Amino acid sequence: MTLILSNEDVENLLSMPDCIDALETAYLDLAEGRGVSRQRTDCITPTTWHEDAVYGLKSMDGVVPALGVGAIRINSDIITNPLVGNSRRRVKVPAAPNERYVGLVLLFSTHNGEPLAIFPDGVLQHIRVGATNGLGVKYMAREDATSIGILGSGWQAETQLTAACAVRKIETIRCFSPNQDNREAFCTRMSDVLGIDVRPVAQPEEAIAGADIVMCASNSIDPIFFKQWIEPGMHLSSIKKPEIEPTAIRAADKIAVHTHDTDPILVVAKNAKFRESSKQAGWNDAAKLDFKSFPTLPDLIAHRVTGRDAPEQVTCFLNNLGLGYQFAAAGSVIYRRAKERSVGHELPTDWFTETVHP
Amino acid sequence: MTLILSNEDVENLLSMPDCIDALETAYLDLAEGRGVSRQRTDCITPTTWHEDAVYGLKSMDGVVPALGVGAIRINSDIITNPLVGNSRRRVKVPAAPNERYVGLVLLFSTHNGEPLAIFPDGVLQHIRVGATNGLGVKYMAREDATSIGILGSGWQAETQLTAACAVRKIETIRCFSPNQDNREAFCTRMSDVLGIDVRPVAQPEEAIAGADIVMCASNSIDPIFFKQWIEPGMHLSSIKKPEIEPTAIRAADKIAVHTHDTDPILVVAKNAKFRESSKQAGWNDAAKLDFKSFPTLPDLIAHRVTGRDAPEQVTCFLNNLGLGYQFAAAGSVIYRRAKERSVGHELPTDWFTETVHP
Repeated sequence: MTLILSNEDVENLLSMPDCIDALETAYLDLAEGRGVSRQRTDCITPTTWHEDAVYGLKSMDGVVPALGVGAIRINSDIITNPLVGNSRRRVKVPAAPNERYVGLVLLFSTHNGEPLAIFPDGVLQHIRVGATNGLGVKYMAREDATSIGILGSGWQAETQLTAACAVRKIETIRCFSPNQDNREAFCTRMSDVLGIDVRPVAQPEEAIAGADIVMCASNSIDPIFFKQWIEPGMHLSSIKKPEIEPTAIRAADKIAVHTHDTDPILVVAKNAKFRESSKQAGWNDAAKLDFKSFPTLPDLIAHRVTGRDAPEQVTCFLNNLGLGYQFAAAGSVIYRRAKERSVGHELPTDWFTETVHP
Repeated sequence: MTLILSNEDVENLLSMPDCIDALETAYLDLAEGRGVSRQRTDCITPTTWHEDAVYGLKSMDGVVPALGVGAIRINSDIITNPLVGNSRRRVKVPAAPNERYVGLVLLFSTHNGEPLAIFPDGVLQHIRVGATNGLGVKYMAREDATSIGILGSGWQAETQLTAACAVRKIETIRCFSPNQDNREAFCTRMSDVLGIDVRPVAQPEEAIAGADIVMCASNSIDPIFFKQWIEPGMHLSSIKKPEIEPTAIRAADKIAVHTHDTDPILVVAKNAKFRESSKQAGWNDAAKLDFKSFPTLPDLIAHRVTGRDAPEQVTCFLNNLGLGYQFAAAGSVIYRRAKERSVGHELPTDWFTETVHP
């Protein structure tokens, strides 16, 4: 049977420690050249949804033989570019029936090729970003780190904290985000979820001063962390290119990135009104850094490089780009747990296989 | 609702003339830069199926705004490389439960992103190859062509003939393939399907002599059509690179290829026992041709070049590589007909969409 799972299923089935473990196994395979990851591609055309919007068919895939799976992640998006303040944001519109987004993961077996499961990408998308930065913390932050300062209170911030708490004995968390209501609600909720005091603060400096681990978890397209805030022994963590200003990155003693994959391969129709986010201000600054000159998370996990050599060193992990490979690794856990717990809609595998030679 | 269709459904829903029409519309969009096509990628790793086999996760996609659809085609294959005679063949093993292959097409709407349908790729794979070479015949063969000589009697040969008969008033067909039983059974069946006399012959020269259209529809990795067989006014048609020897291709007055896309992008695990088919003998000869120097089928359809200027010219169409784009174009017809005729399993679209931002 092929399983159809929901985001709710994924949330119930995939714990953060399980996801971190699966990614760690998978990254070791990737470092050794046994696992393979295919760079993301985006096909962009006009859409009848709106003359200023575009349609995007995005895909990325990867195969993790150590976990017996391959996966492809597909997004079918209606994308707009509204002006927010002085900058253009890229906004996905939930245009599918019932105002929904379209993102799917298809999981296959490397043992016999069969389609194991189909599930939406939304919840996993967040968990895998958290787990990746969690591995950054595991391999680079001080062993005795107990405090986090986090910038951001959205959905990314939640999984960032959950992941950091899975790899270090965290005792205090301070959170800054620009909107007071948002950060207070976030802190109340996360104190409950983590069983740790998560305190809202009114300035970013208050969150960061004295923190062992600084986590940027924003949707900003401009830098939100600056060099003058760095303290000895800090670990800096970012979920996207522009968050930490380049001079702050360069000031770190140890720097690692998620991947050496470059930006997605774009195939854009001539008449599509498409703006690349990499052409925006914060991304231009980030682009001056040569990401390929830094070791990757798989390099750290394979012990080709050390993440930290001394307690006073400043370390910095940049989660520069996502990989389809992550969806395969985490997907293997989701599938195993779903079978153990009999979760999901079971459809005949014959519906997704064939006798005709393809 | 999202439709789950079978190969049998696809066969019943998609007529060859409909497929040819949809591809013609789509190629015009592609020529004008309004449609986009993403090059195929193959991820290759070892598999526990057999130590000499590999696992392959292959994908290709494309978006045809003129038809309101995007599609991704995915293959999840167990691949072996048995020695057949003196050469290695690449053979897909039906390793999934019930001895089945795994190839899927996911069809999405460019209007709102929604997943419209999921269906196997096997039947469409054959029809779209036929339809593509059929368009080659339409734009390059003599208007008054009435006879076909075909080399091959497998599944590709069937759709090649159906397509040619959809665009020219064909009266006689002669077929050669090495196995007498196969070619006789094929001719009996195709005479019935097409309502035309399809005659088996014992030598390739007998099939070709005097034919207005020569169709190569083999699984050979070596040339099967040679320069000395060319006659004035002939149209030569091939479904893969090595079939027509390069000197015969060069002897044609007009040459066109399907696409300027190069070979698939390979991402291969270090420890995978993988042999590229492009490294094999026939492919090496074909590789000496600069496929990018020839106009493409979309160029012909957009009337950027002519396919034939005089009845005595020799024309040659090479279907050098498939495109995910074809699956989108043909998929739009399959989906429309399925809705008209209430065919397929309807699943809630909510199963394949989400409220969580991806």
